[in-house]
Amino acid sequence: MGEFEYIDWLRKRTPADDRVLVGPGDDCAVLKALAGGAWLVTTDMLLEGTHFVLADAGPRRVGRKAMAVNLSDIAAMAGRPVAAAISVGLPRNADSKLAEELYLGMREIADEFKTAIIGGDTNAWDGGLAISVTLLGEPTPPGPVLRQGARPGDWLLITGGLGGSLLGRHLDFTPRIREAQKLHQIVDLHAMIDVSDGLAGDVHHLCEESRCGAVLRADAIPVHPDVSRLHDQRSLLDHALNDGEDFELAFAVAPADGERLMRTQPVDGIVMSHVGAFIAEGGMWLEQGGRRDILPPRGYVHSFG
Amino acid sequence: MGEFEYIDWLRKRTPADDRVLVGPGDDCAVLKALAGGAWLVTTDMLLEGTHFVLADAGPRRVGRKAMAVNLSDIAAMAGRPVAAAISVGLPRNADSKLAEELYLGMREIADEFKTAIIGGDTNAWDGGLAISVTLLGEPTPPGPVLRQGARPGDWLLITGGLGGSLLGRHLDFTPRIREAQKLHQIVDLHAMIDVSDGLAGDVHHLCEESRCGAVLRADAIPVHPDVSRLHDQRSLLDHALNDGEDFELAFAVAPADGERLMRTQPVDGIVMSHVGAFIAEGGMWLEQGGRRDILPPRGYVHSFG
Repeated sequence: MGEFEYIDWLRKRTPADDRVLVGPGDDCAVLKALAGGAWLVTTDMLLEGTHFVLADAGPRRVGRKAMAVNLSDIAAMAGRPVAAAISVGLPRNADSKLAEELYLGMREIADEFKTAIIGGDTNAWDGGLAISVTLLGEPTPPGPVLRQGARPGDWLLITGGLGGSLLGRHLDFTPRIREAQKLHQIVDLHAMIDVSDGLAGDVHHLCEESRCGAVLRADAIPVHPDVSRLHDQRSLLDHALNDGEDFELAFAVAPADGERLMRTQPVDGIVMSHVGAFIAEGGMWLEQGGRRDILPPRGYVHSFG
Repeated sequence: MGEFEYIDWLRKRTPADDRVLVGPGDDCAVLKALAGGAWLVTTDMLLEGTHFVLADAGPRRVGRKAMAVNLSDIAAMAGRPVAAAISVGLPRNADSKLAEELYLGMREIADEFKTAIIGGDTNAWDGGLAISVTLLGEPTPPGPVLRQGARPGDWLLITGGLGGSLLGRHLDFTPRIREAQKLHQIVDLHAMIDVSDGLAGDVHHLCEESRCGAVLRADAIPVHPDVSRLHDQRSLLDHALNDGEDFELAFAVAPADGERLMRTQPVDGIVMSHVGAFIAEGGMWLEQGGRRDILPPRGYVHSFG
């Protein structure tokens, strides 16, 4: 299957969408502009060997993940996804099944979250599988929730459990689009992020952008059951703080809102935990057994150079 | 330089832009929505070894090309570029200079065409250099020029000369943003495409989308002077028809408009050529020395599988 046959194959599988005036196949896609407001734009690239092992995951789960990590960024702004543009670098020896399965994985979760796939670019090369998705979304009222905005005294809450995502959840997680929108309707979200680098790393991002610090309570951090299946030398807490790719939400709310969320647990199927608080001084601290230690924001960092 | 240092480095080099409410560094960029109308969205990926040889081109020209090929797609719709999101896969052993030079190359041409860089994703891996740019643009009145819309009898015009771009123009070309907008103001562009696959391949795209055929006149096709420096077994005409990556505009206009454009040559610094016409029957033909032969749309096709 050549590039143009693949484009034809894709176009046949592209459902009509009122928001898409011109879909895949022209020089650009044409997207209907929304009435006023703003657009959210995010892009994430997945690379073979770094973000997935193709032989283990299979192309459909890789495609799903490529779309889902971008949906998670839209969730972190409490936005609604609208349209995705995809570019793919395929290993030259790949069979056409790989390209198809990749697309079906993306399509599956795009459909679940009502996201149009509006275009893309497919190329073959001598390297490994590389997939880049750019996702456009719209804010939901009262507007995008940024990383900045946490205030000293705010509570830090997270959805779900953390750690051990490498056992499979890093591929099969559900982006917290619905949960973020629900929370955005019922409380004033001061700041929010999705947990991709690990809780310690991502709370560090919130602190930096909000120009404040944070104290996390070790016994309040919900360790995902997956962690106990890892059997390595690291502590459960270390995994929960630093594994990353949980794609849960970490957010700052006023104490009264935090207290209400913890009491009512209004998000179906997700338990929220109150894991700490923001403080005026910079830096991050971990409270454990009556002690307060520095918490390094190491998380998961792709370093180069 | 780690990922976060690189993000800081990028943010310091991101100028303020009225259209960008939140720039790089949060989960998503936030782009001000335009009043009504539509958005153009395009994405193109460049891969080491397929689209450039890093050691020959150098990272700055590669970055420039990654942005320029997307600008060329916006030009092909007669649009105005607005904002770009970038994702990069860097070889793990690359030095920080590579990432910086890549960015400076993108920045240089983005600035020339008043395009904001609103975000991105940078990763290291064991593979070669992979760069994906997604560009958002706005249509200019009276709206986007599609590949469909060429009518039997329309003239086929192109800007500039074709062939031999591999000698360097495929890296250093100027996307025809200004030229497309100018043409869009003064004539009714029925259909347009940028020449990336080669004239034969791209006119084939126009024909398929417009459900018609085309006749090209061999002696009217402007061969770029670069072709005569290639010294290979292929004819000059073969190069002009099939080399690709010229990034000139090929477009369909009514004969009266075509005649006027040819007579007045209203686009500064660019000579337009009348290279053929669209016909009702499907298929492509090349007229040469009184003969009419089938013209295969082979162009430059990335094939896989």
